[in-house]
Amino acid sequence: MNQDYIKPNAWSILEEGFDAAHVKSSESLFSIGNGSMGQRANFEEKYSGDTFQGSYIAGVYYPDKTRVGWWKNGYPEYFAKVLNAPNWIGINVKINEEDLDLNQCKSVSKFTRELNMKEGWLSRSFEAELQNGIKIKVDTKRFLSLELDEVGAISYNVTPLNSSAKITFTPYLDAGITNEDTNWDDQFWDVLNVVQNNQQSFIEARTMKTNFHTCTFMQSRLFIEDKEILTDCNNQNLDKFASCSYQQTVKQKQTFTIHKFGGYVVDRNHDKNELIATAKDVLDKAVSFGFDALLEMQKQSWAQIWHMSDITIEGDVKAQQGIRFNIFQLNQTYLGTDAKLNIGPKGFTGEKYGGSTYWDTEAYCIPFYMATKDQSVARTLLEYRYEHLEKAIENAEKLGFTNGAALYPMVTMNGEECHNEWEITFEEIHRNGAIAFAIYNYHRFTNDYSYIPEKGLEVLIAIARFWHQRVNFSTDKNKFVMLGVTGPNEYENNVNNNWYTNYIAKWCIEYALENIETVKIEHISDYMRIKGKVKFTDEELNSWKNVADNMYFPYSEKHDVFLQQDGFLDKELITVADLDQSQRPINQNWSWDRILRSPYIKQADTLQGFYMFEDHFSDEQLAKHFDFYEPFTVHESSLSPCVHSIQAAKLDRMEQAYTFYLRTSRLDLDDYNHEVEEGLHITSMAGTWMSIVEGFGGMRIKNNMLSFAPKIPKQWKSYSFKVNFRNQIIKVSVSHKGTYFEVESNSDINILVNGEITKVSPNNLQTA
Amino acid sequence: MNQDYIKPNAWSILEEGFDAAHVKSSESLFSIGNGSMGQRANFEEKYSGDTFQGSYIAGVYYPDKTRVGWWKNGYPEYFAKVLNAPNWIGINVKINEEDLDLNQCKSVSKFTRELNMKEGWLSRSFEAELQNGIKIKVDTKRFLSLELDEVGAISYNVTPLNSSAKITFTPYLDAGITNEDTNWDDQFWDVLNVVQNNQQSFIEARTMKTNFHTCTFMQSRLFIEDKEILTDCNNQNLDKFASCSYQQTVKQKQTFTIHKFGGYVVDRNHDKNELIATAKDVLDKAVSFGFDALLEMQKQSWAQIWHMSDITIEGDVKAQQGIRFNIFQLNQTYLGTDAKLNIGPKGFTGEKYGGSTYWDTEAYCIPFYMATKDQSVARTLLEYRYEHLEKAIENAEKLGFTNGAALYPMVTMNGEECHNEWEITFEEIHRNGAIAFAIYNYHRFTNDYSYIPEKGLEVLIAIARFWHQRVNFSTDKNKFVMLGVTGPNEYENNVNNNWYTNYIAKWCIEYALENIETVKIEHISDYMRIKGKVKFTDEELNSWKNVADNMYFPYSEKHDVFLQQDGFLDKELITVADLDQSQRPINQNWSWDRILRSPYIKQADTLQGFYMFEDHFSDEQLAKHFDFYEPFTVHESSLSPCVHSIQAAKLDRMEQAYTFYLRTSRLDLDDYNHEVEEGLHITSMAGTWMSIVEGFGGMRIKNNMLSFAPKIPKQWKSYSFKVNFRNQIIKVSVSHKGTYFEVESNSDINILVNGEITKVSPNNLQTA
Repeated sequence: MNQDYIKPNAWSILEEGFDAAHVKSSESLFSIGNGSMGQRANFEEKYSGDTFQGSYIAGVYYPDKTRVGWWKNGYPEYFAKVLNAPNWIGINVKINEEDLDLNQCKSVSKFTRELNMKEGWLSRSFEAELQNGIKIKVDTKRFLSLELDEVGAISYNVTPLNSSAKITFTPYLDAGITNEDTNWDDQFWDVLNVVQNNQQSFIEARTMKTNFHTCTFMQSRLFIEDKEILTDCNNQNLDKFASCSYQQTVKQKQTFTIHKFGGYVVDRNHDKNELIATAKDVLDKAVSFGFDALLEMQKQSWAQIWHMSDITIEGDVKAQQGIRFNIFQLNQTYLGTDAKLNIGPKGFTGEKYGGSTYWDTEAYCIPFYMATKDQSVARTLLEYRYEHLEKAIENAEKLGFTNGAALYPMVTMNGEECHNEWEITFEEIHRNGAIAFAIYNYHRFTNDYSYIPEKGLEVLIAIARFWHQRVNFSTDKNKFVMLGVTGPNEYENNVNNNWYTNYIAKWCIEYALENIETVKIEHISDYMRIKGKVKFTDEELNSWKNVADNMYFPYSEKHDVFLQQDGFLDKELITVADLDQSQRPINQNWSWDRILRSPYIKQADTLQGFYMFEDHFSDEQLAKHFDFYEPFTVHESSLSPCVHSIQAAKLDRMEQAYTFYLRTSRLDLDDYNHEVEEGLHITSMAGTWMSIVEGFGGMRIKNNMLSFAPKIPKQWKSYSFKVNFRNQIIKVSVSHKGTYFEVESNSDINILVNGEITKVSPNNLQTA
Repeated sequence: MNQDYIKPNAWSILEEGFDAAHVKSSESLFSIGNGSMGQRANFEEKYSGDTFQGSYIAGVYYPDKTRVGWWKNGYPEYFAKVLNAPNWIGINVKINEEDLDLNQCKSVSKFTRELNMKEGWLSRSFEAELQNGIKIKVDTKRFLSLELDEVGAISYNVTPLNSSAKITFTPYLDAGITNEDTNWDDQFWDVLNVVQNNQQSFIEARTMKTNFHTCTFMQSRLFIEDKEILTDCNNQNLDKFASCSYQQTVKQKQTFTIHKFGGYVVDRNHDKNELIATAKDVLDKAVSFGFDALLEMQKQSWAQIWHMSDITIEGDVKAQQGIRFNIFQLNQTYLGTDAKLNIGPKGFTGEKYGGSTYWDTEAYCIPFYMATKDQSVARTLLEYRYEHLEKAIENAEKLGFTNGAALYPMVTMNGEECHNEWEITFEEIHRNGAIAFAIYNYHRFTNDYSYIPEKGLEVLIAIARFWHQRVNFSTDKNKFVMLGVTGPNEYENNVNNNWYTNYIAKWCIEYALENIETVKIEHISDYMRIKGKVKFTDEELNSWKNVADNMYFPYSEKHDVFLQQDGFLDKELITVADLDQSQRPINQNWSWDRILRSPYIKQADTLQGFYMFEDHFSDEQLAKHFDFYEPFTVHESSLSPCVHSIQAAKLDRMEQAYTFYLRTSRLDLDDYNHEVEEGLHITSMAGTWMSIVEGFGGMRIKNNMLSFAPKIPKQWKSYSFKVNFRNQIIKVSVSHKGTYFEVESNSDINILVNGEITKVSPNNLQTA
């Protein structure tokens, strides 16, 4: 936790004062994106200080050759990397022939940066004195359009303050970029074409190996004191680079402005042989709208998003800023319009963790998107996995599984496994369970069963087959056991009978069996089609059932709790509170073997199961397990505190719930883990949303109804959120005085409030 | 197993006929070395086909930057690599301006290669027709001198068969070499100086990072029909290269001969500022001896080695060839004269596995060297670890251990850990036990206690401290447990309570305590010195004892065996015999997780403990454990079959013992593992020796006496071996009729034969 340079504000992220040491952190925190592309908050003008340049296009990746110390059979050959794309934001600025470079100025003052979350733009202003003595004022504003999602726009304004000055703007495109994070320093881009016509520039490039074709483009408009000037530009056109220079001598206190329009078109959406022509159309349209009109559209688009997804918190501006930052970043990363895309753990804010899809999507992100978007968005996320089913079956085959068993990858871009640590890649197999659970969760929430006969059942069968083969019968225990797994707690590896994994495996098999029955009765043609395709027999299903009925679960009589894994009680059970605090975080201070034999839990593991299968256990059991495991949980994963927050709230331990909530909501803004420079923790942001809606709001689906059990931390005056439940939008407003429910629709809705059926009618504030 | 191209012969390794597909395998099998340097059997002349060039200098290594997929705290930064050294054997040969290159000749016939193990030289001869129609006969002989261990000599003879020919010999030195096996394609050598004076050439070079200075040198003598000719040479001197050319036109059937002398001097033995002058002295001496005199000395030196270490086998020429090959290669690799050197797993025959020292040295090699060399050699090997004690303590500190606890590295060159797989580096900690056991074994065999008060006790204390800290008390089991280890069976990782590791840990503590007592009573000044230095207290020793007394050992009542680890009985216990044979070797066919959850044992694990601590268990217990574990053992480590062979012999299962013996003795000659191209399995060769001497010969130390229980496989007529026991050499000759014992000394020796005390007198053949 090293920052308080971010100023509290309900709707904006604000930085005041220029500090070179903050540049890389701010580049992450002020990142902008529109679901189709995104970029770190790099400066437009030259900057010779320490910086991490990044601009990313959704779905454009590169299979970097895997790097390992010691190869193990089954490792993937490639690791799909998020790919730094050609830079289109660059504008070199010269003042009387001196480059503007904040790292070289005599002085920089009045530096501010704002990420306006309400309207979706990034601005920056400062005054600087150059080495040549000229003082200038600079104001910039930039956004990536939601409406025209291949386009971004920049307004860059320079005003000489102490004399007239000759100002040169050189907007450019640069395809000579690399990744910070490459295994072998490969070049990833092959530039095919650099074209300039009059004021427009295009660079057509192709990714090596994956062969994605893109065209990066730009055009600019110039203004003096808001009056557009038409001026020739001086083109430069190199191998991987194109620029236009515009020069004007402006008087003291006169403002010279450039509006730069740029972006990418990709062959995922367009004919690759027509990319430059397509880019020209897109650019013509954007330029003719102009900066101000595009910005107005941007405000409208964000207003729509906020209308549905905003959470308000009164009485705690930092909490308010935190939750909005999380919701904003999730929406910048993924909007649910393209079944080929998914939610990368760093979104468009960095390169770490490579591939785009982890089990985070199913376990944490789907609930957020399901409740704040049209329900088609969650279905699109499910379809992503359906599309990858064949590759998941191949992946399992590589590990020796047969008969259509599927193991979904730990990390992926295109369905192929990208990760290569044996204890994760081959053993952290509970991810399969989250993918099945998401299907159940989607049906539970939306009541849309159609997905299961159409697509989901095939996924459920392939996953059930995997679990059925992955266990073995222990004659010693007279039960089925699962050896050699890594549970959600990655601080234990290669353990036997991880309770969470065994539990979700049993559940997956039972859920698949149940749905085979339902589809057989209610969707007979789908049933016949699927049976013909995947060829299951009654004998096979009976064998599954035998496994589910006879699964082993480690349990301690003494503590009356399920054990996280067979050997848990052999550990030296010193609680986190009794641990020397200088040793934390243990993942930065301890060697791996020491972490592994310690009792410390990186993220909710047994409790993750209690979260997902809450209905299967009594509150007393929850309390007992929470009291047993929480004291050993170090929450060194960003995905951990939200689960404990929700459970603490359920157990009426609001102080504890609030403490966990704080850890999750401002993780990046306050840089708890000293790593925000590398990018933001996008997927865990959905957990923050869950902490409020499911934790404090107590939202569940019960008896096919939306159910709430609202509580409020004493530090807050009130809070509110909305949920899109089966095409009715319910707004929940909670204060210390009580809770109000509203419905945005034409019909009544019955909800459960603390177990009581409560009717909410349109245009009526329902108190509870 | 892909070769039968190696012809059976009692004293030589023979290859007949040229096959380019065998070149790399033969380069390994025909490797030569003299303990100070060694080289693969690369051709002297140019060869454009597939080849693996390698020449290595003992103790000269390079710290290659570690390569990992995912970094774990505690990993070493560098991996010490055996370093390919400048090539001094090269002789380019031109026949009428055409390069001799076996890959380009019209035809090659009568190709033979011989590694003469009795005399320690490598020869090659062939006839070839060049593209220009000239037919030639070539005979070469090469050796690395044991007497002058910085020097090697080559005799290279060319005879034109069908016409006269102009023959050019261009002997050269080449420092422009790289390693086959580098992580980052670094250059390892920095050439400082290329000097030529008259007929002599020198290249002075320094290894990067480690800064070893070496000088590679050469000089040649020329002969026509055995008559020396004095001729000028045509020098060429490039950046990293020096050559001299000699040209003669010789008549049909006349032989032109070059004797090339070359080698290395290193600053480990000489002043680095005088290396060229030193090299000149060495070279002058070698050249003045001449090839024939050096070869004669070589024969004498090898005769001395064989006198002590030969094992004869009558009635099985392949077994005879196998055991001699193993003994020969061990002696080529390590002669015990330098405490800085050790026994690399591939010796001087390849680069794989990097660093030079594994636990193989203590567990497998020391018994061989102890019994076939002067006892100072084994002591030198112990001292190697004493010299590394400080680094072993630093290594343990990196993993969080304190108070002088030592963890010896898994792989090392200079005492620093080189390996980086967490499940090995941090968890395969039983290696510490082998190092303590070697001290015990040395004392048991030699009766030289002096090593323990002088040096060994400090090592024992540091190791005991490690084990004491590495366990933890399990309240659940009410015992000390050891979590998260990898035993000798590397097909299980991160298991709890590996029986072998727990057992040796307990033994190490007890052995350290016992020796602290002995040293206190018998070597009080050493005791005071050590106590002052490592500062142990009675309280600490009591705490150690508590751990040793209360160590947990997993045990199955049902099977009445100790369990390899806590979870072993949960595995699906299908024997190797019942495993689909197409799946073997499993390490080439199965993914790592599948191997880990299988019951298959890579190498003796629990049985390794029964081997080392044989006296602690009854024969009935041994039989029970052997019968339980052998059926699951796949012997996919070269270090495994020898232990099972010894135990099978002890249990009177001679057919089984012989089968295991065969697997170990011709592992490389018959290329069981399809990898001999990469180099030989040097350390496992000592296990082959153990299989005969300890297995069939039944040699043990009992009641401070040498003890035998000779048996003979029915496939053999007889066998014999010698043992240097406390400076008396005992020869044991076993046939189906009985056993003869002889002693080479002036005094009688009492030995045990099948438990009976038997006196063996000088000049007397004792029958038993």
